[in-house]
Amino acid sequence: MFFPMTEFDFIKKIRSQANARGAPVGLLRGIGDDAAVLKSIAGGNLVISTDLLVEGIDFRRSTGQPNQLGHKALAVSLSDIAAMGARPRWTLLSIGVPGDVWDTGFIDQFYEGFFQLADRFGVALIGGDLSRTPERIVINSIAIGESLADRDVFRTGAKPGDQIYVTGFLGDAAAGLRLIERGARLHNDNPSAADTNSIDHLLRRHLQPEPRVGWGLLIGDQQLATAMIDISDGLSSDLNHLCDESKVGALIDSSSIPIDQLVTEICGRRALDPLMLALHGGEDFELLFTVKPENISNLPKRVDGVSVTRIGEIRDSSHGVQISEGSKIWKLEPGGWEHFKG
Amino acid sequence: MFFPMTEFDFIKKIRSQANARGAPVGLLRGIGDDAAVLKSIAGGNLVISTDLLVEGIDFRRSTGQPNQLGHKALAVSLSDIAAMGARPRWTLLSIGVPGDVWDTGFIDQFYEGFFQLADRFGVALIGGDLSRTPERIVINSIAIGESLADRDVFRTGAKPGDQIYVTGFLGDAAAGLRLIERGARLHNDNPSAADTNSIDHLLRRHLQPEPRVGWGLLIGDQQLATAMIDISDGLSSDLNHLCDESKVGALIDSSSIPIDQLVTEICGRRALDPLMLALHGGEDFELLFTVKPENISNLPKRVDGVSVTRIGEIRDSSHGVQISEGSKIWKLEPGGWEHFKG
Repeated sequence: MFFPMTEFDFIKKIRSQANARGAPVGLLRGIGDDAAVLKSIAGGNLVISTDLLVEGIDFRRSTGQPNQLGHKALAVSLSDIAAMGARPRWTLLSIGVPGDVWDTGFIDQFYEGFFQLADRFGVALIGGDLSRTPERIVINSIAIGESLADRDVFRTGAKPGDQIYVTGFLGDAAAGLRLIERGARLHNDNPSAADTNSIDHLLRRHLQPEPRVGWGLLIGDQQLATAMIDISDGLSSDLNHLCDESKVGALIDSSSIPIDQLVTEICGRRALDPLMLALHGGEDFELLFTVKPENISNLPKRVDGVSVTRIGEIRDSSHGVQISEGSKIWKLEPGGWEHFKG
Repeated sequence: MFFPMTEFDFIKKIRSQANARGAPVGLLRGIGDDAAVLKSIAGGNLVISTDLLVEGIDFRRSTGQPNQLGHKALAVSLSDIAAMGARPRWTLLSIGVPGDVWDTGFIDQFYEGFFQLADRFGVALIGGDLSRTPERIVINSIAIGESLADRDVFRTGAKPGDQIYVTGFLGDAAAGLRLIERGARLHNDNPSAADTNSIDHLLRRHLQPEPRVGWGLLIGDQQLATAMIDISDGLSSDLNHLCDESKVGALIDSSSIPIDQLVTEICGRRALDPLMLALHGGEDFELLFTVKPENISNLPKRVDGVSVTRIGEIRDSSHGVQISEGSKIWKLEPGGWEHFKG
């Protein structure tokens, strides 16, 4: 088999692309050694997250562009850093590709999308690994952030009486995925303000999600939340995770869950329940956080154009996690994505 | 399909196994949040390495035990930390497995081997990701180490006149792999001192390599080396890497390369050249390092029972990387493992 570029040549290319972006803060050694070396800031903490993406499970090669996959690989890890209230600084990326993919423009476009998102948040690529695979693309992305001591926001701090908030809208990514599964494709590869009301917007919410870095930073910096998690598995699952960790219950008001008008319309035409997408859809990468009543007035209305919505209240653990629909109250079971559920 | 344990249940189990090992130094938050949080030591550096292992490329399910794979997944990353002269402290592990593997004892045994090695070096599992894959097991291991400022050993510091050393023996892992490919299997799953002269020893050098953590720590701590790299791709490739980064050449004496007597015997019986295995074999995970002449007397003979051998000298870059065999001198081209070479 002929490959136009060796592994080592490719690593050199990525290294020069990383280096062309200047010397990242605190980095003593990046790509090109056995490991990356960071000089930690005095009094600071390091926040580290890792995500594995497997072709055929977490993404399909045919439904999106390679640059969108590069974007998403980093976005899912930046979302974790945001959910800790930390500032993302560095990233390491492992990628395994089959020979037939290597021999195309795929991997260049993948890194283009990856770097484009990294550059927007000043995140530096400092290492990684490259391997061959027999058939499928696999990606592992690592994000490392910095926070000041006592500014990290864990999943464990929610207390009864705290109000529950989410950023943005829920169910968009799930609606986008369903449209893609039924054959929809992006009309325009370049996002613009004009398409926030279009099908493209929903597809992009699945293909190229936006990590809520600005919100995460603000919440960490100003200590606005008692607990926080990113909604990757779905609101029902991630709220249950947060409540488990905090040893509390919660009551969500279904009518207050922010659902995009477009999602409601599309669901209406396809006999789907928009609330089910919003509760269990997953991959919205919005932030879910809890706020003490006395801190509510300090919450900004928007950060980077993204709104925030109160959806319920933390209660003591004896109630479990519940949702109200009109006068009825149900137990909200984790119903989101669970890879190994039978 | 029926899975006896959900993803979340499994993560809980691994978390409790990790927690049962006590609170790791400097860890503010481990498994169970969006990311791990480390409190960095004053004046210290953090050293981070990541390695991707793909079934069918980097390992085969049929040739070793799951616990050996768990050991190896961590060992390759610890080897990188050792090659920086740092102390390994924490690890994050992503693993993707097909449904039919999930439904066996595989993953439990995998973590057993992983934890067994981690415990030996006081390394704590602080996070990771778990995914399903369509067919093949994929693993991404991350190791994080600590070093004191100015004690990191990079690939860049070698100077003409420095002497080149390697730990242990070279070619063992390649010989072991060839035996496995020809059908050899371990007679005894539990290594003992008695088998250092057996076929099992060579198989284990491939299946369950020992990272040279003790040597790495000593070299970093006592600032004994000007440059260091671990031999994962093969001596020829990794020496070329080190020389590229240091902008120097090298002359290796082939007769001084440490080759195990058993490898020589086995090669003799199978018409293989032991020197080729030692030069290009890869996956020995020994350390290659360069020492200033005035520092040579400070090198210990052994660390953790592992010897060290002088194999050549750094020269200026105009010579390139060469090897002498008797009175002949050859250019030593990188001939080790290169995933994408045609």
